Amino acid sequence: MRLRHKPWAIDMLKAHPEIVPADPIALKGHWHEEFNRQAPLAVEIGSGKGQFIIGMAKKYPELNFIGIEMQSDALVMALKLALQTEDLPNLRLLWSRGEEVSDFFMPGSVEALYLNFSDPWPKNRHAKRRLTHPNFLSSYQEILKPEGELCFKTDNRGLFEYSLVTLANYPMKFKEVSLDLAACKDPDNVITEYEAKFMAKGQRIYRLKAVF
Amino acid sequence: MRLRHKPWAIDMLKAHPEIVPADPIALKGHWHEEFNRQAPLAVEIGSGKGQFIIGMAKKYPELNFIGIEMQSDALVMALKLALQTEDLPNLRLLWSRGEEVSDFFMPGSVEALYLNFSDPWPKNRHAKRRLTHPNFLSSYQEILKPEGELCFKTDNRGLFEYSLVTLANYPMKFKEVSLDLAACKDPDNVITEYEAKFMAKGQRIYRLKAVF
Repeated sequence: MRLRHKPWAIDMLKAHPEIVPADPIALKGHWHEEFNRQAPLAVEIGSGKGQFIIGMAKKYPELNFIGIEMQSDALVMALKLALQTEDLPNLRLLWSRGEEVSDFFMPGSVEALYLNFSDPWPKNRHAKRRLTHPNFLSSYQEILKPEGELCFKTDNRGLFEYSLVTLANYPMKFKEVSLDLAACKDPDNVITEYEAKFMAKGQRIYRLKAVF
Repeated sequence: MRLRHKPWAIDMLKAHPEIVPADPIALKGHWHEEFNRQAPLAVEIGSGKGQFIIGMAKKYPELNFIGIEMQSDALVMALKLALQTEDLPNLRLLWSRGEEVSDFFMPGSVEALYLNFSDPWPKNRHAKRRLTHPNFLSSYQEILKPEGELCFKTDNRGLFEYSLVTLANYPMKFKEVSLDLAACKDPDNVITEYEAKFMAKGQRIYRLKAVF
């Protein structure tokens, strides 16, 4: 996703430490204090403009949600949306790369991990950058609880084919595969900005839920 | 596949024991004698009218091919096509159910196993009849060599979603997943009668290659 550069983005992120923690590494093992309650943690890597993670936080107030996004120009849009939305004590946004999840979360502390419309990195020589490369899977395995779910959505056929292979061979157990999410009419599916756009064009959305 | 009933089918199958062996159970462990040579065995379960297995037998004369089909009305069409095709010493057709593969093949004796456009059995209560149900997978595992490949093609999205889950969880290792075989333009893909029809309509064909 390429967004117009917003020179004011970083200042705005820093001005809202109640949603974008200033020192997230210090929160490793202390998220229940940050949220002022014990609740299962759900994490999205690559939150973009935040439509999914904010939709989830509204829909499931009993869970604590953390969205991670490295692009400040995108994350600031998520922050704006969060500020416009009432009653989101259960949401935090982290300005960081997805590679660094084990810096923020203790082993076995995360209930669910979401990857939505990640960069497909279509060239083979960039396969290691795909968020479903085995190197990433091992960092997800570390932070997820036993039976904690990895939920992956994409419109990119090549990335989904690749990910079916890497996850099956890791090995992970598959809980559900959908090759046309619109056709499934899953009432629990929270739609992202990308997803709405692709569905409107009649393009397929793929989804895989798996556990380690 | 529902075909017009051919009362003459069984007589014709019996009249060609050189292609449709009269007692295939007796050939278990003796296929190299039946084919008069040692060569890797490739087996298709549910050969229908035979377009795939006959195409493969022509394309790969160095392998021995066996197509299994329980519907005599379909198998007799495969027999007719085989009789019209020159130079197929490497093909046999078996009139049998796919469930019974271990009656015909010794453990670890089959190089490759093909399932093409199997009956999707869409109702959940019929899941055990799907040829990618774990019960079938264990019989395939028995007859396949180590690293022997199971190659599964279908146009049915629901059956493919189901099969991705059952094969991953069996567990099998995935070698390749294609979610749109026409888009892949695989020059090695031998087209079946169903496949040609579905591709012409612009419908997707899915393919999975996996090993135990």
